[in-house]
Amino acid sequence: MLALRVENKTLSVGEIAKPHNADEALVRVLLSGICNTDLEIARGYAGFNGTIGHEFVGIVEDSTEADVIGRRVVGEINAGCGKCELCRNEDPRHCVSRTVLGIVGRDGAHAEFLQLPAVNLIPLPDNITDEQAVFAEPLAAACGILERVEINENDRVAVIGDGKLGLLCAQVVALTGAATVLVGKHAAKLRIAERRGIETSTPTEATKRQREFDLVVEASGAAEGFQLALNLLRPKGKLVLKSTFHGATEMDASRIVVDEISIVGSRCGRFEPAIDLLQKQAVDVASLISEEYSLADGLHAMDRARAQGVLKVLLRP
Amino acid sequence: MLALRVENKTLSVGEIAKPHNADEALVRVLLSGICNTDLEIARGYAGFNGTIGHEFVGIVEDSTEADVIGRRVVGEINAGCGKCELCRNEDPRHCVSRTVLGIVGRDGAHAEFLQLPAVNLIPLPDNITDEQAVFAEPLAAACGILERVEINENDRVAVIGDGKLGLLCAQVVALTGAATVLVGKHAAKLRIAERRGIETSTPTEATKRQREFDLVVEASGAAEGFQLALNLLRPKGKLVLKSTFHGATEMDASRIVVDEISIVGSRCGRFEPAIDLLQKQAVDVASLISEEYSLADGLHAMDRARAQGVLKVLLRP
Repeated sequence: MLALRVENKTLSVGEIAKPHNADEALVRVLLSGICNTDLEIARGYAGFNGTIGHEFVGIVEDSTEADVIGRRVVGEINAGCGKCELCRNEDPRHCVSRTVLGIVGRDGAHAEFLQLPAVNLIPLPDNITDEQAVFAEPLAAACGILERVEINENDRVAVIGDGKLGLLCAQVVALTGAATVLVGKHAAKLRIAERRGIETSTPTEATKRQREFDLVVEASGAAEGFQLALNLLRPKGKLVLKSTFHGATEMDASRIVVDEISIVGSRCGRFEPAIDLLQKQAVDVASLISEEYSLADGLHAMDRARAQGVLKVLLRP
Repeated sequence: MLALRVENKTLSVGEIAKPHNADEALVRVLLSGICNTDLEIARGYAGFNGTIGHEFVGIVEDSTEADVIGRRVVGEINAGCGKCELCRNEDPRHCVSRTVLGIVGRDGAHAEFLQLPAVNLIPLPDNITDEQAVFAEPLAAACGILERVEINENDRVAVIGDGKLGLLCAQVVALTGAATVLVGKHAAKLRIAERRGIETSTPTEATKRQREFDLVVEASGAAEGFQLALNLLRPKGKLVLKSTFHGATEMDASRIVVDEISIVGSRCGRFEPAIDLLQKQAVDVASLISEEYSLADGLHAMDRARAQGVLKVLLRP
């Protein structure tokens, strides 16, 4: 089968054997999405070698659980050991022995087929299109903010970063009723949020609003975004760190101590709230799709996903 | 009157005018304590010029509120503007226009007299000695941890740093019933915690306990302490940042995101819980006193407070 792979920081599209672990479900991929994490992995982040990709929608072709065979599914990307304290407490997402689809020790979704434990698969309602369903994973990650911090409708929230993740985070936060500002540099991307009634701002304008926000979500993945986030927070405010930076970032510890700020890391999220939002059409994901390519054109698709102004690039096997 | 002052990073003990703001209370200082923040301020931290010191016990000589005159008091060191949203919500500690005794815009406690708003003064019960009362401020800061995070008796907590602050934090944390380990480099200091039944560890031993702790309190003020703290935390664990580092620290953002860690800044705390602990003799502060000097010997006292192995140095006007 065809797969988009990274080996020693080199990307290639080529034929590999179809996965065949009888202990897991086999999924025929209908559509996969390129995430910034894929771009980071291609540069060497996490030291992963194998098929990349973790955002997908597909059809179950085979499974240890008969009732999902033939169903259209999305999938939780973390597969825990099932035995440790975290897994027993239903938190396989943090199992230290976990594999993660296309990120840690497990071939990913930019391929004709993928494998996951049957328990990871979530069947989809019919009224969610493939083009919507492929956003279930990043939208779940955006919804994960609400697993980590409480947001009230009286809160003032800034989301920094108008990329794919920032646009999803801003929409999820705005749905809580909190006054939400999306901070970004790209007018065309900001317009997507504006069409949902979300206030937007350039970083330059935002710097004039120091200490104004109860909560800031950093989704730009840039060190400057982190510094801006700290500056926007009121004393005792919370900074949700949503995107992984490549390498170390400078942190002014005294600012965090003196203003008693909390920095809250947030990675993945539960899929159910995301599927619920997709089903209700409560979040605009269609506007986030920039381009779609055949999996065979995966290298070009990765180049396009890296280009300025491009949002989600989809791959169709 | 005599005062220990810093001007342009130069310390001196000299005569200055007695404070005379009729809108505030005048306190005759009985005893003051040298904090690591004093040492940092002497090196230029916070850009403060004036009389340093913010840990004290004294007698009220004059006040706008008659009932405290003649009383022995300690004092909340933050004086808010009284008008802003934070002050109106009883949080003058974070008022952006606040002055802070011996730290921001207000002469401090290493002097014969100091001034504070009468509302900042807390009368002391008779059974607390001066040598105990002078720890009210740093003990309140240690108790402030519990204002920022919940600690349960099933939690595993590490406190990093066996200095004055770390020893107070470890004792406060241990009183919650949580299994507490104090991590430090100095056997004699660790012994103070051991006498209170608190487990201790060297940093080298502690590095073998990666991801074992639900909560880590960083009280060493060193960048290595911060890195160790991150390594000791389980996924979704909390790191309470208790001491201000001088300058910026490197932070591995991806670790915080991937493990969904929270970093919680904690500065001051309410005095009432600290006075309550002192009154119950629940915390050993006597063992933390290393040396006492006359205020006239303030420069030597500051040198001694900087020396390896020395804990609290007191000044008596």
